[in-house]
Parts: sequence; structure tokens; C-alpha cells
Amino acid sequence: MRCDTIKFKKAPKIVGSFSIVGPKEGEGNFKDYFDYIMKNDLFGEKTFEMAERKMVETAITGAIQNAKLNVKDIDILVAGDLLNQIISSSYAARAFNFPYLGVYGACSTMAESMAVGAILVDGGYFKNVACCTASHFSTAERQYRFPLELGNQRPPVSQWTVTGAGSCVISCEGEGPRITMATFGKVIDWGIVDVNNMGAAMAPSCASTLLAHFENTKTSPDDYDLIATGDLGKLGSEILIDLMEDKGIKLGLNYCDCGQMYYKRNQNTLCGGSGCGCSATVFNSYIMKKLKSGKLKKVLFLPTGALLSTTATQQGESIPGVCHAIVCES
Amino acid sequence: MRCDTIKFKKAPKIVGSFSIVGPKEGEGNFKDYFDYIMKNDLFGEKTFEMAERKMVETAITGAIQNAKLNVKDIDILVAGDLLNQIISSSYAARAFNFPYLGVYGACSTMAESMAVGAILVDGGYFKNVACCTASHFSTAERQYRFPLELGNQRPPVSQWTVTGAGSCVISCEGEGPRITMATFGKVIDWGIVDVNNMGAAMAPSCASTLLAHFENTKTSPDDYDLIATGDLGKLGSEILIDLMEDKGIKLGLNYCDCGQMYYKRNQNTLCGGSGCGCSATVFNSYIMKKLKSGKLKKVLFLPTGALLSTTATQQGESIPGVCHAIVCES
Repeated sequence: MRCDTIKFKKAPKIVGSFSIVGPKEGEGNFKDYFDYIMKNDLFGEKTFEMAERKMVETAITGAIQNAKLNVKDIDILVAGDLLNQIISSSYAARAFNFPYLGVYGACSTMAESMAVGAILVDGGYFKNVACCTASHFSTAERQYRFPLELGNQRPPVSQWTVTGAGSCVISCEGEGPRITMATFGKVIDWGIVDVNNMGAAMAPSCASTLLAHFENTKTSPDDYDLIATGDLGKLGSEILIDLMEDKGIKLGLNYCDCGQMYYKRNQNTLCGGSGCGCSATVFNSYIMKKLKSGKLKKVLFLPTGALLSTTATQQGESIPGVCHAIVCES
Repeated sequence: MRCDTIKFKKAPKIVGSFSIVGPKEGEGNFKDYFDYIMKNDLFGEKTFEMAERKMVETAITGAIQNAKLNVKDIDILVAGDLLNQIISSSYAARAFNFPYLGVYGACSTMAESMAVGAILVDGGYFKNVACCTASHFSTAERQYRFPLELGNQRPPVSQWTVTGAGSCVISCEGEGPRITMATFGKVIDWGIVDVNNMGAAMAPSCASTLLAHFENTKTSPDDYDLIATGDLGKLGSEILIDLMEDKGIKLGLNYCDCGQMYYKRNQNTLCGGSGCGCSATVFNSYIMKKLKSGKLKKVLFLPTGALLSTTATQQGESIPGVCHAIVCES
């Protein structure tokens, strides 16, 4: 019988983390937890794409400093992002003198990079692994949807791509919350074709991974202080709650979605935040700080990704989703 | 002192492999080694992108069959490709009922996926891992360069994107060549801005990984029956030979480049083959068959990737390269 869940023998530690966000994100619900709030979305660069790359560099450097390590202590970077050919990660990797393993799981990338990072450390292959992902409202919108200048209306089911980057360092030594388990998810596609409705497209993959995780680990929602999905948003997280209830599992008050909680009600983000940076900045700020202080003891973190591209959409394809889960314990 | 090279304790085995190529590739130098040659580039699908997805599905299924395993035996798929948001891999993953770990290293993806796959097996995390990558001339050309209908002239330094997919199954049990080492590469950028000259852009990253590999493993070119780079092409492999000679290392007759050797002289591919499918189909046909028969005993396989995107290029960015290496022994 196949088991998609890894239980780490050595429980690699998250020894450092860093979050950097844009000004709008800096006015949202997690504003007191972020490490750096940019004054504007260009971050001193000529284009939004260059700004996103610089955010990745800043997040990685910040996480290494937060871990009280030097750049030369890092063995490898595991990173990815939403832009075509994951350029934010690849071009940022150029700035560092350590190897680079590019990954892609759309907005599930933070958990994917952390799961791979934990494997590299737990297996004894590397000592210190940096993990990172990012997204930027202006680069994602113009790549996936419409030119920014168009100022088009946004449907009620849409979400707002978070401008933010999150990074952490996973290590076999030092102090920090431990990664105890990881569950890799299957690609699930229930035929959603509305590119504005990411929550509905991703919820089934989230339910699939969550069910597999509970079954493989013989745990239930009550075993976790916090179950945090990535960016299902208001609608997607409602769908997830329904899908789980259909399977006899009730997600209670310890369940939340990073995207749903990200912005304040008056920030006009409709169904909430989205993008790789959404769950990445919440995890590497709020969740990490609560784990470190012991306010949270056991967190199930499961960001979801919509694996579409504009080409696939233009050719009439529906939107597959994927969701990877990790368990962190203080 | 950091070491970028992993030496696998259990030496995971490549128990199955499969290669599928287009008609032009089926007339090239490796025609007698491929498992499946398509009659045309559409492979019964409506678009080239859909054909590429079907090629990935076919390669994965073929490798599983070649390994004498069933789909239900596979624990996870590690795959990636050149298309935006690696859709060929992600949409193919939809067809299988196992988890999916998306990776991206441009044309270095076959080695990256195999290195990650070997880690997952060697570390005892999974039993059978499928690895795959693909490229398609018609999808890559119209994504990276010009519409196919334009029929524009190709400069002498250009290469021809291979239409092909290669897949293998890495396992802790069974019979097959062993993966004994893997070296993850750094991202290197020497400022090449000509998007037609991939060989020059990637050669420095290849030299970087090759030097690190030789140093970490205390080996020299003579220790390998075959040193095969991925798709440096005629020019890029000449540059690599020069760069290595500058460092006092002479690459001799046991060095070859998959891209340079791919097509026949009269096939008008200028500097040779390129694309993820180039080294992937050579490895999973010719190299695997020679390793299995014992004609090759120790192979150093190091595909290179150019990490550019059209957006990065349009914004004046140069082309970073990356190269991951694996060692396979019969």
C-alpha cells in the first residue's frame, strides 16, 4: 500500500525565516508580523519583475541572517515562483554562490520547497537548505490575466495576488520549530475553467491531500492547533469545508485559510489573497512567530496551487490543482 | 567546507526507461535506440502543446511498463518541462493517481528530476519514483522565439529544439544501472544576451558543475566511459572544452554532447539539438541501453539549462545557466 506521507526521523528544524511584502499587504491583517514592508511595489527597480526578483533575494538573505548563519553556510536553495520559467527564483539564485534546485507547484510552492528541503536535511544530504517563494500582484496579473493599465473589473470570486516573498532555512542543527511530516499531493482536476475562480479549482486537490494526510498519519483535525490552507480564499475554503464534511471530517475553529485572512475587509480584495507569496509570507511571519513562542504547538500547513497557464486556458483546458502539506511542531 | 555532491549510500537503480520522439528526431543519429517514433508532431492531438502533454504521459507509462511495474506501484512523479508553468508535466500528472513534484531547471530537468528521484529512494522516503521531462520543437519555438508560420531564418549559432520525451523509474529494488552520485549546480551568468546562442549561455554553468564534481569526487575525465552534456550543441561544447582546458582539465574522446550528436549533418539543425527532450531521450534510449548491456560502465550525465524567459529577455536581462550532474554505473 502506497503512502504519500513522509515522517521525518530527524525532524529537521526551521532555524530562520523572513517575510517581505508590498505596501497593501503591509496594511492587512498580518502587518505586525512581517519583517519588511516595501514603500512601493517597484522596490527601487525598473520593472515589477525585477522587483519580484529583488524580493526573493531579500527574503533569502533575511532568512539566512535570521538563522544567524552566513551565506557560505547554505548548501542549496530550493525555490520557485509563478512567473514563466520561474525567473524570480532563477535570476535571484544567480546572486548566491550555492547550488539551486528549481521547483514549481504554483501557489503550493512554499510547502513543496520546504518538503524537499526537509528531505535533503533529514536524509543527511545537506546541512542547511534555504527555501523560498514569491509572487507580485503586478507581475502575476499581467502575465495571467490582463494588462494592469486596462483597470478591468474583477468578478466576486476573484482573489488578489499577494506582493510578497517568504523564505526559511531548514537545518539539522540549531533551534527552531521542527518539520515532522510532509504529504505530497496528487494533481486533481474537477473541470473548473473560470480562471478567476482559483478557489474552486484548487479546493478538490486540497481535500485530496488533507484526506490522505489524515489517513496516513492516523490524525484528525483536533490533533492540530492550526490547519492553514494557502490561498483558497473565501469561496475555496467554504468548498473545502463542504468537501471534507462530505467525507465525515469536520474542520472547526482551528482551520483557517491564509488568503481569506490576509487583507482587511475594506481593502477590496473580494475573495482574499492568493499567489505563492500569500501562504509563504503568512507562514514565515505569523505562523513561525507563534510556533517559536509556543502559542502554536502543531501546525498543518497546506498551500494549494492552480497549475494552469494562459496557453492551456486559451486551448480550452480546465484548471488542475495540487496541494502539498507539511506538519510543523514547536 | 560545503560539498555540492551527494554520494548515494544505497545507489538507487534505474529499473525502467522510455523515449518517444518526433519524426525528424526519428531520422537522426539515435533512431535505432528510441522506443517510439511518432508519425507526426501532433501525435493525434489538436495542438502541439496537447501533443507534448500526451508524449509525457506516454513516456511515463512506457517507463513503468519497461520496469515491469504497474502504475499503482509508483509512489511519486518528479517532472518538469520548458513550457510556461510546466504544463506538459502538470497536465500529464492529472492522468496518474500518484503524487506529483514539479521541478524546473530548463534543459537540465532530466538530471534534476533524476537527482531528486534518487534522493527520495536512497533516503528511504519512497520505493519507486518516476522521472520525466519533454520538449517539443513547435511549442518551444512559438513560446520562446517566433510564430512557426513566420518561417524566419535561423542564425548559425542556433539549435533545434528536440521533439521528444524521456522518462525513467528509479527504485530501491529490481535490476538496472545504479545512480551513485549527483552534483547540484549553481546558477551562472556570464552576460550572454543572444537568445539564439544557448550553448554560449550554458557552457559556463556546465564548467562550474563539472569542476565542482571532479573536485568533490576526486575523479577526472578518465574515470568515466562517457561524459555526456545535454544540449550545449557544437559551439557550446567547444566553449566547454576550452573552459575546462583553462582549468587544466582535458576533455577527451569520452566527452560528447547529446545535442551535437542528435541529428544527421543533412538535417539542417545548425549547432544541433536542444530542449529538455534532447538529453532526456538520449539518456533514456542510447545511454540506458549501453549501460544495461555493459558497453558503458560509468557515465557522467550533465544536462544544462538556460533559465531565461521572454519577459526577462524583453527587459534586457542576460541568460543565466544551470547544470546538474548525475553518475550512473552499470
